[in-house]
Amino acid sequence: MRRQLEARAVLTLDAGDRVFAPGRIVWEGDRILAVGPAGDPPDPDAERLVLPEAVVLPGLLNAHNHAAMALLRGYADDSALMPWLRDHIWPVESRLTAEDIYWGTLLAAAEMIRGGTVGFADMYFEVDAVAAAVERSGLRGWIARGLIEAEDPQRRKLAESVEFAARWGGPEHPLITPMLGPHAPYTCSPEYLQAVGEAARRYGLGVHIHLAESREEVAELAARYGQRPFALARGAGLFEVPRCVIAHGVQLTPEDLPALAGLTGGLVPCPVSNAKLGNGIFPYALARDAGLAVGLGTDGPASTNRLDLFTEMRAMAWFQKLAQGRPESFGAREALHLATVGSAAVLGHDGGVLEPGRPADFIAVDLEASPTTPEHDLVSNLVYALDRAQVRWVVVAGRPLLADGRILTFDEAEVRREAARRAARLVQA
Amino acid sequence: MRRQLEARAVLTLDAGDRVFAPGRIVWEGDRILAVGPAGDPPDPDAERLVLPEAVVLPGLLNAHNHAAMALLRGYADDSALMPWLRDHIWPVESRLTAEDIYWGTLLAAAEMIRGGTVGFADMYFEVDAVAAAVERSGLRGWIARGLIEAEDPQRRKLAESVEFAARWGGPEHPLITPMLGPHAPYTCSPEYLQAVGEAARRYGLGVHIHLAESREEVAELAARYGQRPFALARGAGLFEVPRCVIAHGVQLTPEDLPALAGLTGGLVPCPVSNAKLGNGIFPYALARDAGLAVGLGTDGPASTNRLDLFTEMRAMAWFQKLAQGRPESFGAREALHLATVGSAAVLGHDGGVLEPGRPADFIAVDLEASPTTPEHDLVSNLVYALDRAQVRWVVVAGRPLLADGRILTFDEAEVRREAARRAARLVQA
Repeated sequence: MRRQLEARAVLTLDAGDRVFAPGRIVWEGDRILAVGPAGDPPDPDAERLVLPEAVVLPGLLNAHNHAAMALLRGYADDSALMPWLRDHIWPVESRLTAEDIYWGTLLAAAEMIRGGTVGFADMYFEVDAVAAAVERSGLRGWIARGLIEAEDPQRRKLAESVEFAARWGGPEHPLITPMLGPHAPYTCSPEYLQAVGEAARRYGLGVHIHLAESREEVAELAARYGQRPFALARGAGLFEVPRCVIAHGVQLTPEDLPALAGLTGGLVPCPVSNAKLGNGIFPYALARDAGLAVGLGTDGPASTNRLDLFTEMRAMAWFQKLAQGRPESFGAREALHLATVGSAAVLGHDGGVLEPGRPADFIAVDLEASPTTPEHDLVSNLVYALDRAQVRWVVVAGRPLLADGRILTFDEAEVRREAARRAARLVQA
Repeated sequence: MRRQLEARAVLTLDAGDRVFAPGRIVWEGDRILAVGPAGDPPDPDAERLVLPEAVVLPGLLNAHNHAAMALLRGYADDSALMPWLRDHIWPVESRLTAEDIYWGTLLAAAEMIRGGTVGFADMYFEVDAVAAAVERSGLRGWIARGLIEAEDPQRRKLAESVEFAARWGGPEHPLITPMLGPHAPYTCSPEYLQAVGEAARRYGLGVHIHLAESREEVAELAARYGQRPFALARGAGLFEVPRCVIAHGVQLTPEDLPALAGLTGGLVPCPVSNAKLGNGIFPYALARDAGLAVGLGTDGPASTNRLDLFTEMRAMAWFQKLAQGRPESFGAREALHLATVGSAAVLGHDGGVLEPGRPADFIAVDLEASPTTPEHDLVSNLVYALDRAQVRWVVVAGRPLLADGRILTFDEAEVRREAARRAARLVQA
């Protein structure tokens, strides 16, 4: 079935950054057929939806998450990192069942859909449960099992990750992209990372890894291996895999750039988490000027507390302006590009742009609200002023997941009840 | 009439930080009569409201704003500061009429009410229009006309500020507190500041001023007067007035502390504006350890883009953790205190706390939403996770301004229409 949505404006984010106001988007199946001015003759075969108060833009892509940690949102918050992990998060995580992770991932999906996110890259465990939840939600998922060498002495979990990829990587799961998820070079030795790299190349899989998140990590790797995180990853062959998604990268310096030369994939700053955990500000200008692809992520909801790329976009702008000391050094347009075409480039996805032939992944936000009045600058309003409650429609691969503010793909109230019940049990145990 | 509100929890933010869950609050006229567990026998004379999904907490206080600049939200955003002011903001401001400022202030009031703000300190011009808009909105307002010496060679505007205070300072305007608003020591000479200080003392008025916002300001004052901003203000007698509300203070250093000794009033960081304009991070630990009162503000909506103290609270936490490099260095509780009791202390107001005899200024937020599920930590959820759309009730001086998400004191749609129309005219002129 062909569908047409007409709105006050359509932001394409295409190469010409074209805006059609008023505009329309026509799609069929999972692909866009046409984008243009609303005045064009309507497609007679298309079902029409008219949203005069809305602006349509590409859906946002969250390139780094641990979604099921929504169950632990706010738990022992504001603690020092190691006591928080050791005394609180890890004991609770050791009690998580596959069912908990299924419901936790759906809870995160509800929040992401409401925030205009159309897909996310996830690293967690019980990944069959994660994939089942993502599939039920209707979101796109780049899903990796987090691999920690100490928990995988026989490399069975690495083998299971490859099996998971075989189960979920086929055309019957078009929105799921399995990946391999070596946690980090401080939890996986170079030999283990090398084994992951070999598996990735053999089975044509991408890799999702944390690199250069904290100063402590850089110091520890220097002491242990005499190398910086990026050089270590490159040495282990992780940049010769089909794609490498690098979460954080906050500690990137000019001396790291040779190790990243020719990278397929890119870097995913998580501005709120990077600040909230005291790790620092991603050196965006350095990465951009080096030609690296840069996306945007939330990190897990236990450290970020909100899975909201609108918040991440504006936080990215604030932090970059702060680091540069100049308000003109980074703008709303750049932030919006990171969360759309930027994340898409990192993930190797052809979304993030509205033009014919691209995935029909887009959102419609209602601008008729005091925080986005007046409308001097649409992109500034979207990035700096919008509340995510103004996101009214979310369409992924042509299918509406959110319609006029209501989630269509699952019962959100049931998900909240189940998640709340399980979260309470986990911390009482 | 006596009224009782019962909710899932009542956060008092009193000295014992008591939480009643479930809890109730009883008020009569503009004052709180009782706060306690919901199980206490209901007051038979009270009109009852039961909100089982809500949490009640003190209303938020925005201690620095230029509200009417909502008309310029997003206009020429992301520009360098001086070209932004000189080529864009000042020319438009020179065209603003009193009516524009009335509608702009109401637009800001709509956003503030929806964000759980119960009062704000404002510095702008056409202050009779500002005061009329604030009074119509039902919010509390600490209102000062911004005074720039170059525009006031005869000190007529200072005299008019005193007349404004006489008009609006009486008991017939119980929610309005007029103040004097010398803009800053780089726009007002020491002699002019001294004249303001004398007027403040003679007429018992507080002063609201920008101090130590940017590095450029500090350098300019050092070159011109050989003094730092705080010492200059003290030398001009501005800290011997009944109260001094100091916006920003980002450049505060230990050498400034003697100048601030014994200050009545306090400092108002505006974290988003301070970052977005590239000015820096307020040295909170220094101010706190020196015993200074610290509140929280948004600054004007042309630089901040959103008048949302929930955003400011979480941004304050992120920036402080970032500056300290440690997640445990600043927490959600501290952020919530800044936006309530902190701002109240700076403004000399007895609100920000729910206990008998205090102003009946409180808000009720709906927690039944995915972003605030599960509920491991109520304060963490309020500060880090809540969307302001979850604010459902706002009561100021016993009067509901927002009821189940609807503004009662004015027609919000009319305000948006008027403001949008005037904003469009201003930038086209």
